[in-house]
Amino acid sequence: MTTVSHEDVRAAAGRIGGLALRTPVLEISPGLFLKLELLQHSGSFKVRGAFNRILSAGELPDGGVIAASGGNHGLAVAYAARELGVRAEIFVPEVTSPVKVAGLKELGAHITQTGAIYSEAAEAAAKRAAETGALTVHAYDQPEVIAGQGTTGLEIVEQTGGVDTVVVAVGGGGFAAGITLGTVGSPGPVAGVSGAGPRIVAVEPERIPTLRAALEAGRPVPVEVSGVGADALGASTIGGLAFEILSGPRVESALVTDEAIMAARRTLWQRHRIAAEPAGAAAYAAVLSGVCTPSPGERVAVVVCGSNTDPATLTT
Amino acid sequence: MTTVSHEDVRAAAGRIGGLALRTPVLEISPGLFLKLELLQHSGSFKVRGAFNRILSAGELPDGGVIAASGGNHGLAVAYAARELGVRAEIFVPEVTSPVKVAGLKELGAHITQTGAIYSEAAEAAAKRAAETGALTVHAYDQPEVIAGQGTTGLEIVEQTGGVDTVVVAVGGGGFAAGITLGTVGSPGPVAGVSGAGPRIVAVEPERIPTLRAALEAGRPVPVEVSGVGADALGASTIGGLAFEILSGPRVESALVTDEAIMAARRTLWQRHRIAAEPAGAAAYAAVLSGVCTPSPGERVAVVVCGSNTDPATLTT
Ligand SMILES: Cc1ncc(COP(=O)(O)O)c(C=O)c1O
Ligand SMILES: Cc1ncc(COP(=O)(O)O)c(C=O)c1O
Repeated sequence: MTTVSHEDVRAAAGRIGGLALRTPVLEISPGLFLKLELLQHSGSFKVRGAFNRILSAGELPDGGVIAASGGNHGLAVAYAARELGVRAEIFVPEVTSPVKVAGLKELGAHITQTGAIYSEAAEAAAKRAAETGALTVHAYDQPEVIAGQGTTGLEIVEQTGGVDTVVVAVGGGGFAAGITLGTVGSPGPVAGVSGAGPRIVAVEPERIPTLRAALEAGRPVPVEVSGVGADALGASTIGGLAFEILSGPRVESALVTDEAIMAARRTLWQRHRIAAEPAGAAAYAAVLSGVCTPSPGERVAVVVCGSNTDPATLTT
Repeated sequence: MTTVSHEDVRAAAGRIGGLALRTPVLEISPGLFLKLELLQHSGSFKVRGAFNRILSAGELPDGGVIAASGGNHGLAVAYAARELGVRAEIFVPEVTSPVKVAGLKELGAHITQTGAIYSEAAEAAAKRAAETGALTVHAYDQPEVIAGQGTTGLEIVEQTGGVDTVVVAVGGGGFAAGITLGTVGSPGPVAGVSGAGPRIVAVEPERIPTLRAALEAGRPVPVEVSGVGADALGASTIGGLAFEILSGPRVESALVTDEAIMAARRTLWQRHRIAAEPAGAAAYAAVLSGVCTPSPGERVAVVVCGSNTDPATLTT
């Protein structure tokens, strides 16, 4: 029994409609759809979960909201807090890119940059939350966050008329888990699980295989965090809630190299004028590099999920 | 009597379907839609007209196709020719940006860079076409080109469910003319022309007012060409066919400053992660700068139409 359901995703869609954008889908070749979630407010899907978590909380504590983040989640919480008129405190690790730190400042958040990687910033934020009583918005391991991210899955089904496969990047796993729930019930070809929904290809950089390691160990285990995806996919352990969902039969784990990610990012720019950050290009990298090759006639949605990047680096 | 009709646009849609992309629409606030035509193949809408012109021609001469262009039209003709397996010769003026020249080379076109501005390159191309017998694909003043560009208008109507106003940039006028025809018959509020279709706001840089000058003179007249839009909106005279259509009652002329264009371009990037070239941001500039202010409840589609730009300049 998981603690988040398809119905929670539907409820989230009702809550965040009009606040998060319904991002568009581009069919780049017959049956191959890019879900352009990088055009979302704050530059990634993370506002979906942030709005849903904050709006589910009822009355907010005086301390407002608090979050730890490699960057995109922080930007999203800061954006949502500003839109809702709430105070936001954001903890980011040193690895967070200057573009993201600058964005946080612009959104008026109170920022603390501490710790080498995400998990250290998260510890500091938890300590601070205990002091102030602020509402914690977790980057991936809360039911409301997963349900919020899952609204992306509802939209993919509606906008494409249904696909066989969704390809999506995994960090702490909240996004892929949400999409897995959001697409339940839509036609999908998963052998032996008919009617369950499309196959979910959960893509991780080889250098941050949190889901792969957990699937092999049978439980969430920490991994080393490095490489081009570290500032967005840099959770060192898959979330417990996400793991429950992502260890199900519809989900396949796939790994891509950093080189494949950067090549996909260049192709997205050169061929489609889509300006993705490395994590945002990871799912497409799985398709372009042949790690995940659609069968003839297979309908595939690839989620392009983040754009908080220095555009000068798109052509390098 | 114009020589291009709504039916020609519909026929063009049938011809180019599967070759040009159906670009997505993003509703950035209630009733305000961005038509993301900059995600089109070759980075602008121009492939629509190019495909329609080439496919309407029946058998092609040995010389293949020839075009003169500030850049985007050339990229589009080169792209269409490559897809259709046809030889392409492209004439561009000196003002054409290096990004566009590099793109042309990659597409395998035969390039001649000559003349200070578009009209001089166009003269050279006409002379060469007379020698080789190649099929000329005009940048804006051919019925098949206008009909092809107009397919953007059909999509806007379908994807938004209908709007009151379409805001679109004008160079030689083929794009705006095509959209005017493509949106005929869709509900629109134009006073005294009920049922005719949405209002079309035709936006030009103050420094290249080809339509405005023609409307004032009562006929196409040449203007000086300068400013940030010159490499895409740099026709010095509005096309004759376009003028017939754009001098109709549904069309309003609007002018924007170069500063407003560059500010809109920055906003598109910073707020929406959309990487437009200056001409691609001109229509949005009219809305952002208050030259065209939607009334309460008015449904407006703004066409973001070109992305052939050096991304390093997006944040400057
Ligand atoms: C752009 C981008 N893609 C993917 C992810 C991974 O999301 P999750 O941690 O929910 O797996 C993140 C997380 O920050 C992200 O910013
Ligand atoms: C990006 C862009 N926008 C608008 C235009 C203007 O189109 P037209 O010349 O059909 O008015 C062009 C023409 O090249 C263009 O490249």
